[in-house]
Parts: sequence; C-alpha cells; structure tokens
Amino acid sequence: MSVKVAIVGASGYTGGELLRLIINHGDAELLGVYGKKSVGQPVAELHPNLEGIIDLTIEEADYGKISGEADLVFTATPHGVAMKFVPEILDGGAKVIDLSADYRLDDPKVYEEYYVPHESPDLESVYGLPELYRKEIKKADLVANPGCYPTAAILELAPLLKEKLIDLDHILIDAKSGTSGAGAKPSKKLHHPNCGENILAYNAATHRHAPEIDQELGKIAGEEIGTHFTPHLIPVVRGIFSTSHVFLRESSDEGKILDLYRGFYQDEPFVRVLEDLPQTGSVLGSNYCDIGIELDEGTERLIIGAAIDNLVKGASGQAIQNMNMMLGLDEAEGLRGVGLWP
Amino acid sequence: MSVKVAIVGASGYTGGELLRLIINHGDAELLGVYGKKSVGQPVAELHPNLEGIIDLTIEEADYGKISGEADLVFTATPHGVAMKFVPEILDGGAKVIDLSADYRLDDPKVYEEYYVPHESPDLESVYGLPELYRKEIKKADLVANPGCYPTAAILELAPLLKEKLIDLDHILIDAKSGTSGAGAKPSKKLHHPNCGENILAYNAATHRHAPEIDQELGKIAGEEIGTHFTPHLIPVVRGIFSTSHVFLRESSDEGKILDLYRGFYQDEPFVRVLEDLPQTGSVLGSNYCDIGIELDEGTERLIIGAAIDNLVKGASGQAIQNMNMMLGLDEAEGLRGVGLWP
Amino acid sequence: MSVKVAIVGASGYTGGELLRLIINHGDAELLGVYGKKSVGQPVAELHPNLEGIIDLTIEEADYGKISGEADLVFTATPHGVAMKFVPEILDGGAKVIDLSADYRLDDPKVYEEYYVPHESPDLESVYGLPELYRKEIKKADLVANPGCYPTAAILELAPLLKEKLIDLDHILIDAKSGTSGAGAKPSKKLHHPNCGENILAYNAATHRHAPEIDQELGKIAGEEIGTHFTPHLIPVVRGIFSTSHVFLRESSDEGKILDLYRGFYQDEPFVRVLEDLPQTGSVLGSNYCDIGIELDEGTERLIIGAAIDNLVKGASGQAIQNMNMMLGLDEAEGLRGVGLWP
Amino acid sequence: MSVKVAIVGASGYTGGELLRLIINHGDAELLGVYGKKSVGQPVAELHPNLEGIIDLTIEEADYGKISGEADLVFTATPHGVAMKFVPEILDGGAKVIDLSADYRLDDPKVYEEYYVPHESPDLESVYGLPELYRKEIKKADLVANPGCYPTAAILELAPLLKEKLIDLDHILIDAKSGTSGAGAKPSKKLHHPNCGENILAYNAATHRHAPEIDQELGKIAGEEIGTHFTPHLIPVVRGIFSTSHVFLRESSDEGKILDLYRGFYQDEPFVRVLEDLPQTGSVLGSNYCDIGIELDEGTERLIIGAAIDNLVKGASGQAIQNMNMMLGLDEAEGLRGVGLWP
Repeated sequence: MSVKVAIVGASGYTGGELLRLIINHGDAELLGVYGKKSVGQPVAELHPNLEGIIDLTIEEADYGKISGEADLVFTATPHGVAMKFVPEILDGGAKVIDLSADYRLDDPKVYEEYYVPHESPDLESVYGLPELYRKEIKKADLVANPGCYPTAAILELAPLLKEKLIDLDHILIDAKSGTSGAGAKPSKKLHHPNCGENILAYNAATHRHAPEIDQELGKIAGEEIGTHFTPHLIPVVRGIFSTSHVFLRESSDEGKILDLYRGFYQDEPFVRVLEDLPQTGSVLGSNYCDIGIELDEGTERLIIGAAIDNLVKGASGQAIQNMNMMLGLDEAEGLRGVGLWP
Repeated sequence: MSVKVAIVGASGYTGGELLRLIINHGDAELLGVYGKKSVGQPVAELHPNLEGIIDLTIEEADYGKISGEADLVFTATPHGVAMKFVPEILDGGAKVIDLSADYRLDDPKVYEEYYVPHESPDLESVYGLPELYRKEIKKADLVANPGCYPTAAILELAPLLKEKLIDLDHILIDAKSGTSGAGAKPSKKLHHPNCGENILAYNAATHRHAPEIDQELGKIAGEEIGTHFTPHLIPVVRGIFSTSHVFLRESSDEGKILDLYRGFYQDEPFVRVLEDLPQTGSVLGSNYCDIGIELDEGTERLIIGAAIDNLVKGASGQAIQNMNMMLGLDEAEGLRGVGLWP
Repeated sequence: MSVKVAIVGASGYTGGELLRLIINHGDAELLGVYGKKSVGQPVAELHPNLEGIIDLTIEEADYGKISGEADLVFTATPHGVAMKFVPEILDGGAKVIDLSADYRLDDPKVYEEYYVPHESPDLESVYGLPELYRKEIKKADLVANPGCYPTAAILELAPLLKEKLIDLDHILIDAKSGTSGAGAKPSKKLHHPNCGENILAYNAATHRHAPEIDQELGKIAGEEIGTHFTPHLIPVVRGIFSTSHVFLRESSDEGKILDLYRGFYQDEPFVRVLEDLPQTGSVLGSNYCDIGIELDEGTERLIIGAAIDNLVKGASGQAIQNMNMMLGLDEAEGLRGVGLWP
Repeated sequence: MSVKVAIVGASGYTGGELLRLIINHGDAELLGVYGKKSVGQPVAELHPNLEGIIDLTIEEADYGKISGEADLVFTATPHGVAMKFVPEILDGGAKVIDLSADYRLDDPKVYEEYYVPHESPDLESVYGLPELYRKEIKKADLVANPGCYPTAAILELAPLLKEKLIDLDHILIDAKSGTSGAGAKPSKKLHHPNCGENILAYNAATHRHAPEIDQELGKIAGEEIGTHFTPHLIPVVRGIFSTSHVFLRESSDEGKILDLYRGFYQDEPFVRVLEDLPQTGSVLGSNYCDIGIELDEGTERLIIGAAIDNLVKGASGQAIQNMNMMLGLDEAEGLRGVGLWP
C-alpha cells in the first residue's frame, strides 16, 4: 500500500527535512514539490544532501490539481501563507498537515496579535501532538503541526499538569535552541561570525510560541494558565533543550514523579523517559523526545528537561508521524532512524 | 610604582588567564609561577599563547620565600588545596587572592558539605566582588575571588534584592556556560565529539555555586534566601549567560527598573547596563559584565540577563581588579581590553 | 533472510555507529556485543542515542562461541588488538570485518613501523573499499575496512591514477577532519576548550594513514608511489574534507575530467560526482562520498575535493556495505539514510 | 605625543577591529568615524563590544576636512571604493592606510581582472607587510594593507624563496579560514545552520588573493612565479591556518631550515617561529603570526604552517602596526595584547 503526498513550500529547512524523511518512507510516494520564489530550481540545489537522490524541480502549485492527486499535502510555508490556500486543498479532497503556525491557535484574535489577520479562521484543525491527540489526529483532515518549542515544553509538562501537581503561577520554561530553528533565510543574527561563539536570549517575554504553549497546557490543566517562556539562541545547528522549572504543590520524591512520567508515556514510540536529565546530542536527526527530571530536594522545585531535534520531532518528523496516523499507516514508519552519537 | 606578585597554580585556565592579564599590567611585576604536577614545565608549553612572551618555568613553591618577596600571591589551585598553605603565605606578610572556593563560604559546614572538610576555617576573608565589597576589599589581606556563575547571578540580582522588589521564594537562575568553565582537565563530558553539538543541564539542583549565590544574595536581602540555580553546558569556549526569572512584588515598568540598575551600577567600571538583553559575544576576553532586563508585561515576571567571560570577570580579570584595589592601584589597570567582536 | 552478526569492541565511536546502522538493517540480526573494559555496561549507557532501542550489555567475548553462532563478526577494537583473536574467529567459521588497521597493510614491516609487531601477519585479507575491490570482497572471509582518510583520498584520486593522467611525484593530499575521527578517549588535544575554536595540523608528515594511501594508490598506478599526506583537526564533530592537489601530465579541461570521474563511478551507489567541489555538511550521517573537481586553468593543477562522514563511509557505514556484499545481501541495505542538511 | 586618526568605513569587521585596537593605543586619538549606509548609527550599535566605550556616531565623510585634521586615515571600505577618494585624502595632507585590495596590486590590469577597473591606478603605494617593507612603510604616504591569506602565506614562504631553496613550480598553499574573513554581510554560505558543522573549499583556483601572493613572493624570488592557492571555510569565528607544501631543491634537515626561519624573523615583534606546527587558537585576538615547519624526511617535501587571527595580523592589527611605523611611534604600541587561550 502506498499513499501519495505533495509538499508545498519545499525550499526551507522543514521542507527539506520532509524530503529527507519521505525518501526512506516505505509507504509514501512523493508526487511533487511546490513553491513560489524557487520555482524551477532543482530540489538538490536547495538541499545538497538530496543530490542524486531526488530528481525533482520546484513547480508552481495548482492546488486543485494537487488535491485531486494527493492523499495528503504538507504545507511548509512561512506563517500567514498556508491559510490562503489550505481551504482549496481541503475542498479538493486531500488532507493537509500545515507546518506553519496558521492553524495552531484556537483564537483568531490571538493569532492576529502574534502574526497577521487570519484569512481562514473557521477551518477546523487538530493540534498535531500525537501524545495528546492521537485519536483526533487519526480522524482529522487538517492537522496543525506544533511549533518546535511547544513540542518540547508541552511534552515535558503535560504529566504534571494532568495530575495537578504543580503551582500554576510559577511555571518557568527556559529553552535553548540551535540555529536551524530560525529558518533558512540569512540574517545578521544568524550570521556565523555573530552567533558562532555567542549565547543570547531573544524575544524573552514575547515569543510567538508562548500562546501556543499556554493554550495546550491550559487544556490539560483544565483552566487558563500563563507559563513563563524565554528562548535562547545557542551555536549548535540542531537541537532544542527545554528546561522547565516548576514548584510542586506537595512534597514528593523523584522516584514517584519519574513513575508518573513513565506511565504517562509508556506506549509512546517517540518519547523516552530517562533516568537523568537528557541532552540534545542523543536525539540528533531522530524523532525522539528525551525527557528527564531532577528534584531540588527540600525546596519542592522540580527541574524537567526535554531534548528534541527541532527539525524532526520539532517539525518534519512529527509531521510524518501525523501523516502516518491520518492515513492509517504504521505510526513509526519512516521515523526509525536513530540519533547520531557523537 | 610597581607591585610584586606570584601565582601558585599556574597550569590551569585561570592561572593562564592571570598570566595573560599580568603581562600587560602597567604596575605589576611577576616574580614567579608555582605548581606541583607541572614543576619544571615552561609556562609557554602549558599556555601556548604565551610563547615568546613569558620565559618562566613552573617552580615548586616555598611559601615562606614567596610571601617574603611578593606583595600579593594569587592562588589558582583546585578546591581544597589553597586552604593548606594560605595561612603560611599570610603569615609571611603577603596578601592573598584565592581563586578557588576555599574562602568563599562563611560557614565551614556548608563548605564541607559541597567540598571537603576545611583546614583553615578561621581565616578571615572578604568576598571579592568589587561591586558589593569595594571598601572591604581595599583593606583585606585575604580575598576570596567569586565563582563564575555567582559573579553573573549576584550582579544581575543585587539591585532587585537591595530594593526588596521581588518575591524571594521564586528566584530562578538558569545559567548557560561555555566549556572553559570546567577547567583544563580532559573528561568524557568535555570531549569535543561529545559536547561540540550538544546542549545539556548538569548538577541541575546541586551545583556548588548555589550556596555561594544564596549566601551573598541573602546578605543583600537581609534575610536567608534560597534561590533556584541550574547550570547548562553550551558548546562555546568562553562565556556565561545567566538568565534570572523573578517575580515583582508590585507591578512596575521596564524604564523604572532599568533606572534602578543604572543607578546601582553608575560608578562601576566593569558593569554595563544595556537597553536590551546582553550576549556573551560582546564581552569575550574582557572584564565586563553586561546586564539587561525584559519585563513580561502583565505577569510581573522580570527576566534579567547577565553576560560575562567566565575566565575574565568570572575569574582572573576579577582577581586582577581585586589586586588593584588591595594594593592601591588604579582599579582598571590591566583590564582595559575590549571584548572581541566578532 | 536474515544474517547473524556480532560486534567485538562496541564501546568506541565506530562500534556505536555499527549499532546505529545495524538497528535499521532489514536483513541482519545482532547476536551480541563484546568488549573488555566495558564488560557489564549497558550499550545505551555508552551510546545514549540507543537508549530504549538496544537493550544489550557488553559481554566478555568467547570467540569460539561467537564464531559458531555468527555469520559475520565486526571487530572494532583499537589497533593491535584484533590481530590477536581474528584467526580464532575465522577458524570458527565466521567471516570478519576488521575496522582497525590490523589487516590493511600488505607488508607486516610497514605495519610494525607505524603500529606494533604483527601477531597474525599471514592471514589473507581484502582491502574493503567496494569501489575498487567489490569482486574480491564478495568472496572474502576477512575484510580490512579502510581508514577514514584513505577512503576519501583513494576515491578522489583513483580515476586519475588509473588513467595515468597525473605527475606521480607531486600528489598533495591536504585533509581536514572533524574531531570524532580521533576516537572516544578524552585527551588534551580533543578537550573542547582547546580545540573548539582552533585549527591545526598534526602528524603532518607522519600520519599512519599515509602508507595505506600509498599502498592502494600504488596498486592502481601500477607502480610504487609516494603521495604527500597532511591531516588537520577542525572543530566539527563529523566530517572529512580531503583536498588533493595534483598536476596533469598533459593539459586538459574540466569537462573531460569530470566525465572520467562520472564514468568511473557511474554504477557506484555511494559515490556522487558533483558539478562543484563538495562539502561535508551534505553527507553528514550518510554513507555517501561526494567528489568534485576544479581545474586551475593554465597551470595544469587540478584540485579534487572529497567529502565523507568519517564514521559512516569512513568507517562503520563502509563496514556494513562490505558485510552486505560478503553475505550476499543488497549492497545498500541499511545505508539508505540521507545526510542531514542542515 | 599623540597622533590624530580617522576611520572611513567603520561599520564592517575590520573597521570595528580598528576601533577595538585604537581604544587602547597610548599615542593615538580618534577624530571620527565615517561611512555611507550606516551614517547616523552609533558605533556601539554596530559593534556591541564597544558599548559604553566609544560614544561616536558614523558621520558622512568630508574628505577635505578629514585630511586637514587627521595625521592618518584608515580606509576600511569594500574593494573598489577607497580608490575613489584616497587621492583627495592624500592631497589634503593626511597619510592613508587602505585595508581593501585597492592599492595592493602593482598592475592595474590584474586588479581589473579580479575586481573592477581602477580609478586611481597611478598612486604610489607601499605593500604594508612590515616584515618585508619596514623601511618603505616608514616613509610611505599610502600603504596598502595586505590581505589576510597573503599575510600568512607570504610570511611562511618568504625565507625559503629568499634563499632559493624550493622548487618554484610546486608551491601549494592550502589555507583554512574562519568565517569572519568573509565580512559582516549575511549570506547563505555564512548562515550558521549551513556552515556551522561543515567544511568546504571555495574559489579553489580563482581566489582574489592569489595574484597578491604571487606578486609579493615573485619579488622575493626575483622572478615571476605562480603558486597554487586554495582556501577553505572552517566553522571557527577567527583564525587562518595556512598550510604550504613545498619541495626542497636539495635535501636538508629540519634544524637547518628552522634556523633559517629564526634568523629571518629574529627581530620581528610579531612573528614567532615555533618548535612545532602552530595553531590558530594560540593567536586569537593578537597580532602574532606563528610559524612552524615539518620536514617529510626522505621526500624533500616541507610543510610550513602559519597561524594568524585574520582580523588582527590579517587586517586591522597589521594596519595599526603600519600606522605606528608611518607616524614614528613604537611599532608595537596598541598591539601588545596576548592571544586568548583557551
């Protein structure tokens, strides 16, 4: 059995990563790659790892045609773009996984505050975090693939919120990301001499991923919550290390909390609960999210660390995982690659 | 006028950095370099940047002789070592700046808990953070040079604690350090393939610098406090970025808080209060501590960032600053070097 | 169909990389992992990427038993170790791929000069570079897996030597390697602070891979040759970029030479001849060797660049490729992973 | 005594580095900083290391006024720009050090081939490599500051060419540069995700620095020569490691050649001849050029390595060294900073 997929927005890093993964997917056939500025460019020129492997050229998208032929379309366009044509693709009969932020936020006003006015706010989408919404994803036509930071933050905090173990007013998420999370477009900030030996915080109180984190964690908590999220830029290419600092409502011990995490994620193919705090190096290139905890004895502060590859579990790997579920395939197909170590 | 100094423990990174700075100090003469395992080794073999510049060889220390000849002795030995011979140096008439943790903690029991039993617990020392203890440092015979993380954390939190602006129960210090902070001894963790493309937390609730931070911030707050400190290892060679997340007792605005910081540090030669959050790249190789803040409007969370070069303001540069004050020299002498950018 | 394999020496980087690749090999079953110092350690403790994926512990090797059960044994031990027990494994009936240098050099005297006296010099082995020795590898019982530098250097020079196009007295191979090539053992040279922002040459005229390169290129040239090989250490984790500078005997043009390379490697699954010079970033984590050339018009100097991942095509990936051929499997099985970009 | 200087083109990396060095120069006073696109921008915004240290803003240049007030003007503009206004500055009575390529090449046709048509080809300039042209620099009105690669290559080859020891047809210069050499303008190639874990060659046979190297080495050799130069991009921020591979005309030994180098550079304040091959890490941030050699015994191949900080000895440090000589100051003033190690 083989499903047919297409990628709109194949010139960026997440588009390239979708291609890298699709190539070795046993049950998916790639119909075409579509874009705008890069129309006419061979895929291997944009993503040199694909040289000799994918012999496709970026085409201009005819959404009617694409949706007629494809079972599922990935939209890996910049924020504010997919919302213009996703309705047409859905109308045409194909399912959609959008890797941008366009369908992640329930409230169009919040979307507008952080991005731009929404042009298709009424479309129904499922937030594509399999560990929380597997059942819904399987039935969805439109999945909003989560942001990279939210993936790590939500996975590391969900068990605690579900069990109502922590003080909701002091959830601090201090995240560290490699540079590929910022995308393929050159900028002063990402210019190697400027960031190659540098550590800095950015959008420390205003990052676009904050409302996404709060929306999803609030649903788990059963009430509106406001976490405190601050991202940092770190000179590695891939990897997010998300450190959450929270305060237990009642004193506990590390073993019990670890058991909670193990139970929560026991059937998950891509979440590994470790004995110790994780490291991004162990998940490089893979779809795993590694989670570990450390209890600050006597203070009730709990430190939770989550490590992902921002381009895999934080973007394109998770999108493939969603595709597998939406199309009735083995959830792990195409995602069994192990992280590179070292 | 020229003062005479000696360095005990010149083979490590902080010893090498003292040498780099002393070389261009207009008023200090280096008498000798002393060690144990490296006796007989030319300094330039241990620190290749000094090739052709310092023609000294590590000698075995005769503390009586050294203290008779030197005005001041730097001890840059591993924790637990200086405490064995600092009393002898002081008896001999030389002042001492200890770069290890041996004289930083007021309570020998706390020292013993985090390090080893203390062998000279009764010696009186001054905590060598000029911004807090300038007056005392000027009169001190023994200065305990602060740890790298505490330097950044204390400087970024002191103004808030002094003014009693923040909730003392939820002070989160999430710090990120380059690899040179771990010292010159090779280890699995610091082996380039293992850490070169990796982000991780370590000693997340138990780092030795935590009691040092609490001791000093408690003094400023006027009461015992327990901050929450978690360090991370980042693949840059030099630099600490310390992110503090705190909660204001009463709502305020960024401008007011910035003014508080500017007032607090207005006469400080080595603290720069910036408009925005800082970055370690701007202080590389220099003695500056750059500080910036960002207020999470509506939540009363304040994010404070401090950036230092861990080997300069976080160790040997600060030691030179202390030396200058202890010996009546211009406080900035030998420390006017500007950070490398890029 | 499934073949049975074992790994002796599974604690190092090449051992770990074999495990990473075997895991997703469709036709191979891993019987066990063997070692010495690490006996009793879980594999996932040594290679954290394998957490939750391989639940094996390093065992002490009983070569008789191993060779009775396995079809093929990988020996990934330090140089000078495999030669002690490979004869016993072969006697027991299993084939062997040795990833050390022990069976690469035809002349035991040369081996002794660069390593140690050989203890099983009479064993017949095939040099495991598929592009040159595919036929022999298929029939071999013992394959000597090539060194990382030789793999890149031989592949980039073979077509020119075969066609006798270049001056044999001036073959300069200036290679640049990431740090993982030096192995998992911590050292001063590989300590992150020392090498993280540093470029250096090492063993500039005396590297152990030089005789290996000369031996193989000499066979192609049909006469004894002496290339000039100099390696450098570069602060990336994975990757070798080998730059050969050679002089054409007669003037030619880039197109013709490129055609020669394309013809030479046209059926090769893991050599890609590019339009331009390659880059290591495009092959990261994959078994590809990317090759490109540039002709210095008017001077007859030809620059050839080859890029590999030193742990894959330069070690364990190539070993899997050899295994596939030796055991009659699809040569590319387990090696279809595409490089990570970025 | 204090000289007055101005900088035209202060927004790039070499402009920023001039500022970093001028700040701590005991005998130079900075009159102003001039530019085009960045007019109105505070210097500390462009170079964050200068925050609180230099309170100047980029002004539009009035060359008549500048040359009337300044003793010397640094032009750190892109190639092809300085040649438009340097004549006016010289006419106005100020000396000029141009950090671009505009006055490096004797033959305007060669300049035009590699850059653009020259607009002031008749101006007489001195090539600002102090080790070769100290006498001429002292008397010069216009100094062409050497390129970064040529500085390393010429210094490492000059002694051999002067003594006619090597085969002129096979001089291979394989250079490795950090990313800051490419300038401050963001590009796809220098985008961190693309180059942060990557090694590549570029302009392998056509780099603009090749004719500069040949011109200067030809003068030393006393005849026209064509070296073979190939540069590589390495993910460090600062540093050039230049590896020259040459062939001795007659067999010799390492000691003798080392003596030749030591003699040649014995009075040079910024060239260090080492026992072993150098490393860029030892000169980081300093004006030193470290040189070492290794003889490939029996083959007459000699490997010479030179390590510089491309922004200091390879650009702005050398410019300060030239200024000191042109204005009768101590040659090392402002340049005594020692490299950062680690």
